[in-house]
Amino acid sequence: MKILIINGPNLNLLGVREKNIYGDSSFEPFFKQMQKKYIDITLEYFQSNSEGKLIDKIQETGFSYDGIILNAGGYTHTSVAIRDAISAVTSPVVEVHISNIQTREEFRHTSLISPVCKGSIVGFGFNSYRLAIESFR
Amino acid sequence: MKILIINGPNLNLLGVREKNIYGDSSFEPFFKQMQKKYIDITLEYFQSNSEGKLIDKIQETGFSYDGIILNAGGYTHTSVAIRDAISAVTSPVVEVHISNIQTREEFRHTSLISPVCKGSIVGFGFNSYRLAIESFR
Amino acid sequence: MKILIINGPNLNLLGVREKNIYGDSSFEPFFKQMQKKYIDITLEYFQSNSEGKLIDKIQETGFSYDGIILNAGGYTHTSVAIRDAISAVTSPVVEVHISNIQTREEFRHTSLISPVCKGSIVGFGFNSYRLAIESFR
Amino acid sequence: MKILIINGPNLNLLGVREKNIYGDSSFEPFFKQMQKKYIDITLEYFQSNSEGKLIDKIQETGFSYDGIILNAGGYTHTSVAIRDAISAVTSPVVEVHISNIQTREEFRHTSLISPVCKGSIVGFGFNSYRLAIESFR
Amino acid sequence: MKILIINGPNLNLLGVREKNIYGDSSFEPFFKQMQKKYIDITLEYFQSNSEGKLIDKIQETGFSYDGIILNAGGYTHTSVAIRDAISAVTSPVVEVHISNIQTREEFRHTSLISPVCKGSIVGFGFNSYRLAIESFR
Amino acid sequence: MKILIINGPNLNLLGVREKNIYGDSSFEPFFKQMQKKYIDITLEYFQSNSEGKLIDKIQETGFSYDGIILNAGGYTHTSVAIRDAISAVTSPVVEVHISNIQTREEFRHTSLISPVCKGSIVGFGFNSYRLAIESFR
Amino acid sequence: MKILIINGPNLNLLGVREKNIYGDSSFEPFFKQMQKKYIDITLEYFQSNSEGKLIDKIQETGFSYDGIILNAGGYTHTSVAIRDAISAVTSPVVEVHISNIQTREEFRHTSLISPVCKGSIVGFGFNSYRLAIESFR
Amino acid sequence: MKILIINGPNLNLLGVREKNIYGDSSFEPFFKQMQKKYIDITLEYFQSNSEGKLIDKIQETGFSYDGIILNAGGYTHTSVAIRDAISAVTSPVVEVHISNIQTREEFRHTSLISPVCKGSIVGFGFNSYRLAIESFR
Amino acid sequence: MKILIINGPNLNLLGVREKNIYGDSSFEPFFKQMQKKYIDITLEYFQSNSEGKLIDKIQETGFSYDGIILNAGGYTHTSVAIRDAISAVTSPVVEVHISNIQTREEFRHTSLISPVCKGSIVGFGFNSYRLAIESFR
Amino acid sequence: MKILIINGPNLNLLGVREKNIYGDSSFEPFFKQMQKKYIDITLEYFQSNSEGKLIDKIQETGFSYDGIILNAGGYTHTSVAIRDAISAVTSPVVEVHISNIQTREEFRHTSLISPVCKGSIVGFGFNSYRLAIESFR
Amino acid sequence: MKILIINGPNLNLLGVREKNIYGDSSFEPFFKQMQKKYIDITLEYFQSNSEGKLIDKIQETGFSYDGIILNAGGYTHTSVAIRDAISAVTSPVVEVHISNIQTREEFRHTSLISPVCKGSIVGFGFNSYRLAIESFR
Amino acid sequence: MKILIINGPNLNLLGVREKNIYGDSSFEPFFKQMQKKYIDITLEYFQSNSEGKLIDKIQETGFSYDGIILNAGGYTHTSVAIRDAISAVTSPVVEVHISNIQTREEFRHTSLISPVCKGSIVGFGFNSYRLAIESFR
Repeated sequence: MKILIINGPNLNLLGVREKNIYGDSSFEPFFKQMQKKYIDITLEYFQSNSEGKLIDKIQETGFSYDGIILNAGGYTHTSVAIRDAISAVTSPVVEVHISNIQTREEFRHTSLISPVCKGSIVGFGFNSYRLAIESFR
Repeated sequence: MKILIINGPNLNLLGVREKNIYGDSSFEPFFKQMQKKYIDITLEYFQSNSEGKLIDKIQETGFSYDGIILNAGGYTHTSVAIRDAISAVTSPVVEVHISNIQTREEFRHTSLISPVCKGSIVGFGFNSYRLAIESFR
Repeated sequence: MKILIINGPNLNLLGVREKNIYGDSSFEPFFKQMQKKYIDITLEYFQSNSEGKLIDKIQETGFSYDGIILNAGGYTHTSVAIRDAISAVTSPVVEVHISNIQTREEFRHTSLISPVCKGSIVGFGFNSYRLAIESFR
Repeated sequence: MKILIINGPNLNLLGVREKNIYGDSSFEPFFKQMQKKYIDITLEYFQSNSEGKLIDKIQETGFSYDGIILNAGGYTHTSVAIRDAISAVTSPVVEVHISNIQTREEFRHTSLISPVCKGSIVGFGFNSYRLAIESFR
Repeated sequence: MKILIINGPNLNLLGVREKNIYGDSSFEPFFKQMQKKYIDITLEYFQSNSEGKLIDKIQETGFSYDGIILNAGGYTHTSVAIRDAISAVTSPVVEVHISNIQTREEFRHTSLISPVCKGSIVGFGFNSYRLAIESFR
Repeated sequence: MKILIINGPNLNLLGVREKNIYGDSSFEPFFKQMQKKYIDITLEYFQSNSEGKLIDKIQETGFSYDGIILNAGGYTHTSVAIRDAISAVTSPVVEVHISNIQTREEFRHTSLISPVCKGSIVGFGFNSYRLAIESFR
Repeated sequence: MKILIINGPNLNLLGVREKNIYGDSSFEPFFKQMQKKYIDITLEYFQSNSEGKLIDKIQETGFSYDGIILNAGGYTHTSVAIRDAISAVTSPVVEVHISNIQTREEFRHTSLISPVCKGSIVGFGFNSYRLAIESFR
Repeated sequence: MKILIINGPNLNLLGVREKNIYGDSSFEPFFKQMQKKYIDITLEYFQSNSEGKLIDKIQETGFSYDGIILNAGGYTHTSVAIRDAISAVTSPVVEVHISNIQTREEFRHTSLISPVCKGSIVGFGFNSYRLAIESFR
Repeated sequence: MKILIINGPNLNLLGVREKNIYGDSSFEPFFKQMQKKYIDITLEYFQSNSEGKLIDKIQETGFSYDGIILNAGGYTHTSVAIRDAISAVTSPVVEVHISNIQTREEFRHTSLISPVCKGSIVGFGFNSYRLAIESFR
Repeated sequence: MKILIINGPNLNLLGVREKNIYGDSSFEPFFKQMQKKYIDITLEYFQSNSEGKLIDKIQETGFSYDGIILNAGGYTHTSVAIRDAISAVTSPVVEVHISNIQTREEFRHTSLISPVCKGSIVGFGFNSYRLAIESFR
Repeated sequence: MKILIINGPNLNLLGVREKNIYGDSSFEPFFKQMQKKYIDITLEYFQSNSEGKLIDKIQETGFSYDGIILNAGGYTHTSVAIRDAISAVTSPVVEVHISNIQTREEFRHTSLISPVCKGSIVGFGFNSYRLAIESFR
Repeated sequence: MKILIINGPNLNLLGVREKNIYGDSSFEPFFKQMQKKYIDITLEYFQSNSEGKLIDKIQETGFSYDGIILNAGGYTHTSVAIRDAISAVTSPVVEVHISNIQTREEFRHTSLISPVCKGSIVGFGFNSYRLAIESFR
């Protein structure tokens, strides 16, 4: 089983950025921990701040991987193009968010990608990613 | 560890009701399977069609249980009173939905309870409940 | 043929409540008149102020009765849960209203249950119920 | 007793037009059947695609007939002028629709004429007209 | 003079629930204090989490009591049915709120019951109830 | 000087229709009175219930008359086509209304034709037409 | 007959201000011309930039004058207080505007005072005032 | 204890203005009655039609008085500046309204000043002021 | 191949009306040019200012012609009835507009007929019609 | 004559992606066919998933090419930056869409780029591109 | 060079009012500092809580001064009349705000005066005024 | 002191693009002028049409530079991702715009980045950048 975790814009700053919202540890150690925990799954990781590159990556992997776990960051609320990429590919995509976006600014309450994802997991910190991996088992 | 699963209105008809949306198996067998799988957790189950009884139950368990998993059904979108009950208690509440509510009618796109829950898991069928249990580990 | 008439909240006060809107006779004599007029139909009657009990009743009868005539009163405009109950059962449900709800407050102009009912009959006083019975013939 | 049934735009194509919504039989045979069934009532029929002619007809009959049964078709949602005609005349007007307009496009959910009609009957196929006739008895 | 105080959902948790908003004392001692202070008034108290039971109670007392003081809690913003119950009865109903609902979430800014109450008293803590009693003198 | 007064749908029923709003005298005697009062002006009158015929008339006279006085009735609020006709012609058009449309239903508060008219005169009963004639002097 | 013309904020700058919208002559000469033309009417004039003073003036004259002609300028769209003053007094108030406010910014399309005025005359330049005087004859 | 009652625009016309809404007695006798009833409180009174003068008064008294009772009249719904004045001072301000503003025009349903007041008392006629005085005890 | 071009209200004034928007040549010469250019196609032309007659024409030709090219003018934005006519017939209908309606007034931005047309061609002047003809080849 | 066709995000997947909407053939063969058909026109093609690269390309060609044909895909509905690029260059830009975007999700009904394009061609499948080429002749 | 700084309602309380938002120093010392710093500029200062007086001042200075720096306080969001005054005068007006109004209540996000000002400077504390002075150099 | 000026999409075309809005000189000469004027400040410049690269740049410099001056161009109104980048870094960011965005299209009236910037300077042409530099002194 091959699963790709994609993190969108500014999620390369986890552990540095707005710690009161996102916590104070960076994503890489957590990712390695997950790789160890789920040894039967080939877990890969990709991050980009560019909408276009996120789309490229979804297209590139979305016809062969068993699943994609996507935290589209700020693009969650504005990108029809990423939504279209998810619809275009055949791999199931699970949406995750670290924080509870419903308790934040109004414009974060709407996700353009939820309706084309298999499901959504929101608000469990880094655990959201773990539960997303679990969802593929 | 003691966790209560609460199902709201019409979820007693799972397996009978709108099978194209909710699937064709009832909740009880799945619940028993979960009890077996998570033997270290005391899993309980409660269902009611009454908003008032759901609130009563949340109040009754919400100061002593380790967690509540809540599928509030149709009350998700209309009940300020259930939201207030969740805010009032100290146990963390995880919101779950069987179907992807973002792909259904407009009025199902807004959840009044999301902002006061620990997190939300939406769209994985009965698996949403399993992932919610996992979220407490 | 077995048909259940369900009246929602405050409709137990017909004849007492806001007579300029609802008229000054209570529902029971009218119901008895209907039973006499339609002797070939088993007509039953249920009233409750509780959203939960209305759902219970719809679930209880909605798989065996030939039809349900529902005046959901104030819940017409607020209850996703009753809407879901109507969708869940197999008996056709006909929506009735005594007054012309389109001439009253703005929030009464939208019915959450209309889209899942077989049809709606609005504004004919108690005659709305008679026409609903006729609709099943 | 003299009752006029008025059908608005495109209802001359019943039986030909969008059969999945409106059924596959034309209106005339049904109308003749009604004339036979209600021999004590003088039933007349008028159809036009023109808003102006519908208003002319309502004005012409609306001070002498015992009732008008109006399916204003597409004008239901856009015509203040037809609404004003209904308000202007003294005969009671009953609004009917063949399909359940609440399950169709958003712009069909609002009827400009409901508030000035005696009542509305929606969603019973051609039976909507029969129930409207019944409402005058 | 006979006055009933009705508290809606979650107000049984006063003193326990969200103390920063509602204060840290429970309602019962305050109620007893009021009974002592207003010895010429028969003060009664009722609390329920159920919309239906609140309606039942309003109907039961609303034709004979001199006044009802109602804090409908979360139902304030969602219940057309409770509004209709208030309109249906003859006793004057005074709306009270402990906190200033205008400083809280947007959905708490609209009260469905205000327009049918005699008056509203908002934001004075438990004192809101005392002022409501005063309003009947 | 040649001026045409155009009355839209249902204004042929003035004196008969909703007398509390429009008064109890018909338009013709008033028109004759105006012809007598303004003998230096050739005053003409046209009424139709048909949007198309109103447009035809505006096109027919709108390049040669000195002014058009238009009470578009219900089409005021819905007709882009009449608005376009007014824009298309070269004669100045003055909008009039008998009643104060701002005190009536919400949908009567917006006039599609105001922005393309020379000016508007609203709420003076039949006097609105007289003031409109005055506006051309 | 005693009529007061009230001009609101910035209308003291007529002839100086935004000439493309308001023309290039000041109000005073026009006012004198009107006094001459309507010698049987006692015409008075008042201008202020202050909402409070406009209200004071309406109160002061609004129980004894035969009519008030009011161009409330920018307060037209924002002042509930001036609206209330108009409602409070017994003299009829006619609303006038020099320019066609419907062709200007969106916020100028709504007049808070129209619904409480006897009528409105909009878009005829200074002639709007003359027509308003005519409306009292 | 020193308390100032401030009445906003048009409230100097109480007893004269729209008696069906505001009653037929003027404010001064009532105020004197209150001064007699609450002899331990120094009660003062101020009325102005000017937004600016109301702000001046709030600033002038709002750092030394024990409380301000404010009926801002029409400014309630439009004045950010009065709201800011209330926020700026340290004396608690209680909002009162004579009529039930929720049953009147839509634009009266929103109070800009409620969120910065200690509390609101609405709909009890002149009694609203008495209850506001009581709220300071 | 048989194609009908239908022009709606005020398009008979092309070349005369608002030349800055619609250009200064009338439609007939252009139509003749098209007939010459596309000699293998039977091109017909119909214009009316009447919504009803446009519907009549669509019904009359819409079951036998190979295509209809429709510029519905002002009815584009307001006519549910024309939309229904297009849905009712079997011939494909192509929507055209001469000007770029997206750069004009807000109410011209929405087309009620686009969703039921085969396609739309907007903003190319008279060329829009030529491209529409090309679309049928 | 030199024309550039630009395809935005996910249009590299034509023939693979959502075939029910976009058809089952890829764009390249169609493009070659167009090059053959229009031998007098230098046709070029560019595709990118990146908003920035699309802007770069528009800037690069938009001062020297005779025309640009742009299907901006998902960016159509969200990109002010692409709109600004179109405004900034001097070459005319024609907007095309393969599917009828008015029959799809609400957020696809608004095009941010339409108002700055020369014209729009929507809903003709790949033929939309051919008609766009024709529009430059 | 002659520049007037105008401060609107409640800005006389700077240093006293809501210090967390506006800081704890009053405006006068800062103003004197500015006078010293910009000795080549005649700097004047005016403050009023009255909308009318602010308009008077703008009119009085707005045809002769080289610039006006305006912090309209709460009137920023509600005053069409001040906007009109700015449009009416010929001196350029620069809008300033001390706090970042976009981070405060929703109603503070819209400025009615921005569109008619030369420019806006927002969020730099008292420095906003200094930058505004700089903007005139 | 080290300050970076970032220009977003299409601002590389300044002096070429829409000169009536943005003026006819390019940015580079102005930037050099600023470098000369502020010799004590290390001024750098970056421009990109790509949202992702703008984010990369903000992240790269936003933890070490003393300030960032950002004109995000079209992304101002659509980019949550750039907003998040600004929130994530520690350097203060000042928003600038050349034109007065409040006088342009509606969608340009809302800035997603204002609330997370230190302040905003809008409408002073290239001078906006100079004032932004001044703001850091």
